[in-house]
Amino acid sequence: MTRKNPMPDLLRHWREAVPDDRLAHLIRDVARAQMRALQLRLAEHDVSFGHWTFLRILWLKDGLTQRELSELAGVMEPTTFAAVKAMEQMGLVERRQLAGNRKNMHVFLTRAGRALEKKLVPLAEEVNHVSVAGSTEAQLQAMRQFLLLMLENLAADASGPSSSEPH
Amino acid sequence: MTRKNPMPDLLRHWREAVPDDRLAHLIRDVARAQMRALQLRLAEHDVSFGHWTFLRILWLKDGLTQRELSELAGVMEPTTFAAVKAMEQMGLVERRQLAGNRKNMHVFLTRAGRALEKKLVPLAEEVNHVSVAGSTEAQLQAMRQFLLLMLENLAADASGPSSSEPH
Repeated sequence: MTRKNPMPDLLRHWREAVPDDRLAHLIRDVARAQMRALQLRLAEHDVSFGHWTFLRILWLKDGLTQRELSELAGVMEPTTFAAVKAMEQMGLVERRQLAGNRKNMHVFLTRAGRALEKKLVPLAEEVNHVSVAGSTEAQLQAMRQFLLLMLENLAADASGPSSSEPH
Repeated sequence: MTRKNPMPDLLRHWREAVPDDRLAHLIRDVARAQMRALQLRLAEHDVSFGHWTFLRILWLKDGLTQRELSELAGVMEPTTFAAVKAMEQMGLVERRQLAGNRKNMHVFLTRAGRALEKKLVPLAEEVNHVSVAGSTEAQLQAMRQFLLLMLENLAADASGPSSSEPH
């Protein structure tokens, strides 16, 4: 699954080729680079990035249905189904129906699945730490404020996209 | 393909539930919100976000092989193959082998595929415009600088992840 390191090409893009490329691309490239940095670390623990995504959700709220998991992870249900089955075989989760409801399959962490939280979350924290090296606390806070402003703007847009004026 | 609007839940997360959640999550949420804002606009032109991703690459460099397209889009080859076939049926691209090389299938824009650039790129520009509303030019530049710093940090990390100190 690990591809050739895309970072040299990315840096060339932003340093030389198209330094004034759209902000959306810059944000997406940073998001991908962070994902990849985490993926490299998770691989050392034999956990894929996909499994991490589901584990993270279950650590916060155990026993969700496969449909709820799909929605929260933002993926299609067959993807969730395949991942949950693989994680069941790895002994990280169990699937159970609840008494009185035969319709929904709920996903519960095993002891091993729950124990991974202490091991893997520090890897994500390390990626955050590494990625903001050399910045000040004030810059970091300004950055977060800017990103929150963007979320608010995009939420307003999503509730009525046609109201925005093209520039 | 369009799911229920995830923005109200996202805003609740960042405003109330976990406002100090990790920066990587904030960046990923903004990236997703921007993608979704563009997706809503592309849908009005019957173009999926997946097709947009490939079109955007071909507008910059026509005639790439399916493998090159996959690498640049950051997706698996079967995904590219399926998208290219669909786009061929829509009359947006053609697949051709080049003389003297039977191994690679190259993807070329049709006139219709090329013409879409003028129609669709302004939609992406509009999303960028909408998402930074209410910010100053200085804030925007500081934000870009911060994101570029993150890319540089993550690139350095990718070339030697074990050299970073866990904090």
